[in-house]
Amino acid sequence: MALKITALAGGTGGAKLVDGLTTLLEPDKLTLVVNTGDDFEHLGLAISPDLDTVTYTLAGLANPQSGWGRTDETWNFLQTLKEFGSPVWFRLGDRDLALHVERTRRMKAGLPLSDVTRAFCRIFGIDHVILPMTDDPVRTIVETDDGDLPFQEYFVKHSHEPQVRGFRFEGIENAKPAPGFLQAIEDSEAVILCPSNPWVSIDPILALSGVREALEGKVTVGVSPIIGGQAVRGPAAKMFQAMGITPSACAVAEHYQQILSGILIDEVDAELAPEIEALGIRTKVTQTMMKTQPDRKRLAEEVLAFTAELIEAESRR
Amino acid sequence: MALKITALAGGTGGAKLVDGLTTLLEPDKLTLVVNTGDDFEHLGLAISPDLDTVTYTLAGLANPQSGWGRTDETWNFLQTLKEFGSPVWFRLGDRDLALHVERTRRMKAGLPLSDVTRAFCRIFGIDHVILPMTDDPVRTIVETDDGDLPFQEYFVKHSHEPQVRGFRFEGIENAKPAPGFLQAIEDSEAVILCPSNPWVSIDPILALSGVREALEGKVTVGVSPIIGGQAVRGPAAKMFQAMGITPSACAVAEHYQQILSGILIDEVDAELAPEIEALGIRTKVTQTMMKTQPDRKRLAEEVLAFTAELIEAESRR
Repeated sequence: MALKITALAGGTGGAKLVDGLTTLLEPDKLTLVVNTGDDFEHLGLAISPDLDTVTYTLAGLANPQSGWGRTDETWNFLQTLKEFGSPVWFRLGDRDLALHVERTRRMKAGLPLSDVTRAFCRIFGIDHVILPMTDDPVRTIVETDDGDLPFQEYFVKHSHEPQVRGFRFEGIENAKPAPGFLQAIEDSEAVILCPSNPWVSIDPILALSGVREALEGKVTVGVSPIIGGQAVRGPAAKMFQAMGITPSACAVAEHYQQILSGILIDEVDAELAPEIEALGIRTKVTQTMMKTQPDRKRLAEEVLAFTAELIEAESRR
Repeated sequence: MALKITALAGGTGGAKLVDGLTTLLEPDKLTLVVNTGDDFEHLGLAISPDLDTVTYTLAGLANPQSGWGRTDETWNFLQTLKEFGSPVWFRLGDRDLALHVERTRRMKAGLPLSDVTRAFCRIFGIDHVILPMTDDPVRTIVETDDGDLPFQEYFVKHSHEPQVRGFRFEGIENAKPAPGFLQAIEDSEAVILCPSNPWVSIDPILALSGVREALEGKVTVGVSPIIGGQAVRGPAAKMFQAMGITPSACAVAEHYQQILSGILIDEVDAELAPEIEALGIRTKVTQTMMKTQPDRKRLAEEVLAFTAELIEAESRR
């Protein structure tokens, strides 16, 4: 496995594949770029949900049940905060809170998010590079029938129930890709789009200035987050529907059509393979559900093998 | 007990007497004014140690062992923060933290500290009025042989070990007494100086513009925080020494001489009574150590009885 890879990821699903990839690729062979459109300020704290999910996952601290936050967590802060009538819809555990307080402190002292993230990785013993997609503020707004909602309000406070009409990424025009992000793509033989929500996890990353240009001519491999027409977790399927598209692995492939060399889809969606191949996107059918730790590694192996095939095919053209 | 009283207090010792006073005086008969010179910003949070000690004490939540913080506390936030290499010398418990986060949030939203304090009292079921001495930032600086130290750094971080040379209260010139503070003195028949540190707990309150003037002609009764030449807790005795004064109940009386009508001193200091009386300050000898809850009420009773005597004597003059 000598491939050099950049992987783009959001939260839970992305973090799982990323976890698998880190077991197969040395730190100098893999750069992880994580969505920060979900970031927000809450109770005066700078919170980066996707970054934290990836960080906690690679640190072996992620809570496997919830898909967010830490294991071995306590909730005395939040319980007390509730007595003050403060907003407690975003659940901050006592240990998790230390990360947010410390990140806020460092950012207020002038450090960019990417520096803070690098320092946290060092503290957590994570050798792989985790880059926030940008050091500049980008805020995903979900346009709904109940009005415009910052992503966490839509997702957590309103349990992703409001009817979606569209998305926008506030600040994206002025946001620069984090230092090292575009260089990582340039240095990589392939880019992997992890099985994260296309609309709100991967699209913000792709919308950053220069990213789509950097992907031109690069082997780009996706993993469908839609399995059997459903999202494994979260509102991805609902979002496709809201945008007038039947959710499917094929819809995911079409969504990324401009940049995608190949896509891995689940066995339950095998019948969609010809339709996706017809889009000019090479398709690999496999088990894509990651329920256990070994699933993560196995899927990562499949992704890398398929990517190697595509690079090989590309080089023969 | 129909006396109307304003009590000035700092942290631990002051909070205990205040606790006793609230069991004897109805909320409309007692206003509590608390030092905010100890306040500081830490980890981006607005922290008010003396206010919190008084508030937690009256809420029945104070930790009787430590003299600060809450009972039923956990430390998972701080333990995790330590792993990040963040400053953990100021010990913030998981539940206590909610108070600081919520105060910071409300103050950033533009509410003055006195409004926030009133809201917290309502939440904690405290009927008596607790006023911060001012809504403006005042910061006690301890001038030491190791340089100028903000109070909490001197007191907690350096365990009040540096040799003291003096004190100053930054911001005091521009600070206004909190709304209702001067009116409370005017409406009161007497003002009580709780057994708090004269140099850093009571002096900042007295140094606010208009406070000494408001006390003129008012019966003002102190309780010596120095017993047998020692402070019950904290650096008060050391501070007298540093300022070239032998610490004693008499030294406390002299410190407040300009404003004091009378003082309660401990039985172990009975021999000092004539010397204090010679300063023109009426002196009451009693047990002033508050080790138990009943001690607080008993001392408060003594304070109020002595205060009533002084008011009576004053009215006969």
